[in-house]
Amino acid sequence: MSNLLVGQSGGPTSVINATLAGVIKNALASAEFDTVYGTINGIEGIINNNFISLEHFRDEYKLRLLAQTPASYLGSCRVKLPSPGTNDALYEQIFSFFRRNSIACFLYIGGNDSMDTVQKLSEYAKAHSITDVSVIGVPKTIDNDLCATDHSPGYGSAAKFIANSVRQLACDADVYDLKSVLIVEIMGRNAGWLTAAAALANDDITCVDLLCLPEHVFDIDAFAQKISELHKTKNTVIAAVSEGIKTADGKYLTASVIGSVNDKFGHIALGGVGASVAVMLKNKLGVKTRAVELNTLQRAASAYGSARDCNEAFDIGFAAVEFAKQGLTAVMAAYKRISDEPYKIEIIPADISLSANYEKKIPQSMLCGDYGVNDEFIKYAKPLIEGEPERIYENGIYSIIKR
Amino acid sequence: MSNLLVGQSGGPTSVINATLAGVIKNALASAEFDTVYGTINGIEGIINNNFISLEHFRDEYKLRLLAQTPASYLGSCRVKLPSPGTNDALYEQIFSFFRRNSIACFLYIGGNDSMDTVQKLSEYAKAHSITDVSVIGVPKTIDNDLCATDHSPGYGSAAKFIANSVRQLACDADVYDLKSVLIVEIMGRNAGWLTAAAALANDDITCVDLLCLPEHVFDIDAFAQKISELHKTKNTVIAAVSEGIKTADGKYLTASVIGSVNDKFGHIALGGVGASVAVMLKNKLGVKTRAVELNTLQRAASAYGSARDCNEAFDIGFAAVEFAKQGLTAVMAAYKRISDEPYKIEIIPADISLSANYEKKIPQSMLCGDYGVNDEFIKYAKPLIEGEPERIYENGIYSIIKR
Repeated sequence: MSNLLVGQSGGPTSVINATLAGVIKNALASAEFDTVYGTINGIEGIINNNFISLEHFRDEYKLRLLAQTPASYLGSCRVKLPSPGTNDALYEQIFSFFRRNSIACFLYIGGNDSMDTVQKLSEYAKAHSITDVSVIGVPKTIDNDLCATDHSPGYGSAAKFIANSVRQLACDADVYDLKSVLIVEIMGRNAGWLTAAAALANDDITCVDLLCLPEHVFDIDAFAQKISELHKTKNTVIAAVSEGIKTADGKYLTASVIGSVNDKFGHIALGGVGASVAVMLKNKLGVKTRAVELNTLQRAASAYGSARDCNEAFDIGFAAVEFAKQGLTAVMAAYKRISDEPYKIEIIPADISLSANYEKKIPQSMLCGDYGVNDEFIKYAKPLIEGEPERIYENGIYSIIKR
Repeated sequence: MSNLLVGQSGGPTSVINATLAGVIKNALASAEFDTVYGTINGIEGIINNNFISLEHFRDEYKLRLLAQTPASYLGSCRVKLPSPGTNDALYEQIFSFFRRNSIACFLYIGGNDSMDTVQKLSEYAKAHSITDVSVIGVPKTIDNDLCATDHSPGYGSAAKFIANSVRQLACDADVYDLKSVLIVEIMGRNAGWLTAAAALANDDITCVDLLCLPEHVFDIDAFAQKISELHKTKNTVIAAVSEGIKTADGKYLTASVIGSVNDKFGHIALGGVGASVAVMLKNKLGVKTRAVELNTLQRAASAYGSARDCNEAFDIGFAAVEFAKQGLTAVMAAYKRISDEPYKIEIIPADISLSANYEKKIPQSMLCGDYGVNDEFIKYAKPLIEGEPERIYENGIYSIIKR
């Protein structure tokens, strides 16, 4: 017997199940694997012996539904393994699970922390001369902050949802004849990739005027000044603001602004960065302000995603199984960009040590002034949002599949 | 000369321009009208002599773009006219504009307040024996609170965005193995139609557990109790909460909860109802809570709307011009439902006095228990969200047209 085990971990994306579908499709068709199992809630399922067969996805319709269902079909976790050597009993438990269930390959779909898990399991296996199980990572994150891959599955769909949301909100914000500011709060705590994606909305019409990225220091006075200047020539100013913007002292804006307010309803949880900035601007400029938080739909709106992202997410799952069949271990499947125009990528196995625990921010070369990105970013990001995926609806309701 | 003037007013919807497109399409093709004008920012454009020709929409591609562009292409306003007789100079100014520009018909696309404008202009015309200009209302509101029409253009698309957002968020909310609550805050200050639309997400899978409608008194203790009961059998409880929920004393929840907090950052603006409820629940139940506000995308997300709503919105604009050609005045074009299954409507002229200034709440017969709606609501709302509109994108970016 030789089986494949797949798990999902970390925050959801709208295409993490497309990757799972790619894994299942290839693994079920491969003579190398007898059965394909899914661990429930990632590494927790291995520890708690909680896993299921994925045989039912031989049904093509179910597999299509899986590929368009947002978030982790198998459930997720936020477990970080201790370093190998500090708690060998836990590792022994995991590898004993692999032996017991004849797992020849464990594929882990996740972000930075999950790649850390892949690395640690690989290290343990190597140190204990375990050669009958390979451990392979498959990337996912809307944040696009994973290293060793040109971009991350999930980013393109989130970027597209953000760009088109900003575009539609820009129409909505501009209907009255008065000066106003719209702040659109966007995810991404340390890297500004998602906020920068709002710039894609400015394809033919200026929809967003300013980007506030975590890569820049945020200064409310300079920002208000900039908006005042823009108000001289236009009614509606729109800014895309990252949830991770920090003031000059290195503190997150939310903490520095409303951290001092202390009441039993816990206002720190109430107000996001966007709302804080909007209120500060209202006080400074005396104009109508509104804050919109794009919220978790950024990572869940698979109905409004990028066809390219969905297809690539499937392909990278499929490719990861190929790498397993080639006997690779301690690698993460990664996108390597061959060219921007025409857009072309290859999927390659990258050494896991290149991605685990690193974080990729927007490089300086893509930034422009205090509130923008340049053509280098646009050239990079634009191909990732192309195409509208064909989706199944039943009477107007988006079709999904749950465990 | 005999010209048609069209204007838009009130809060935007994702199909208010589809209605404008229907008006333009019919009017430009009609021998009865020489030119079709649009007033900028509704009645303000008439008062300020600010209007444009809409001849460029003879171009079919531009007309298609218009129909899929959210919010008011012509701009909007929130002007409420004084009663006729109290400021006749203003009315004289408006009717002098009509005479000067040979306006034979003024079509006003809007909600309650705009229908009030249509009624007042009609009354003034009648009182002054003005018979060469007809004034006709065309409904729009995501709130679905207009009387005299089965439903309002814009509601179907908003309802669909809400139902499918809740459905996708439900996948996202349920990935970790822990007890949690997701509060989804939905628009609609006095009528619960939009919040109730979340129930459409429960087509085959329970995605939303509880609805908190403005038609019911909201009691946080009873609500927390209900969630505790649900947590006995499931991890993730999801509630759709109207921004307009009120406590037993008739106060909006936001005001009663955080109205007492008074600091220079104005927290009333910071925290919405959903965030307030989430924090209160966290304090009471000690479980993970998250609030998501569906925000203005509810009325702007035309890319994710209902094909039926878009088509009907176009048709009602088209029909309103027919009514003008028949010489009708002081009417609002309205949907009359002929049957639920198969779904069939007619567009009829309804006396303007039946809609102006009234507000339609969800009838008691559609409510079920303290936190739900019944099959009567589902039968009513389900046909309104059917079909995905064909939309134009350019390289993944949603195409729009601006003035």
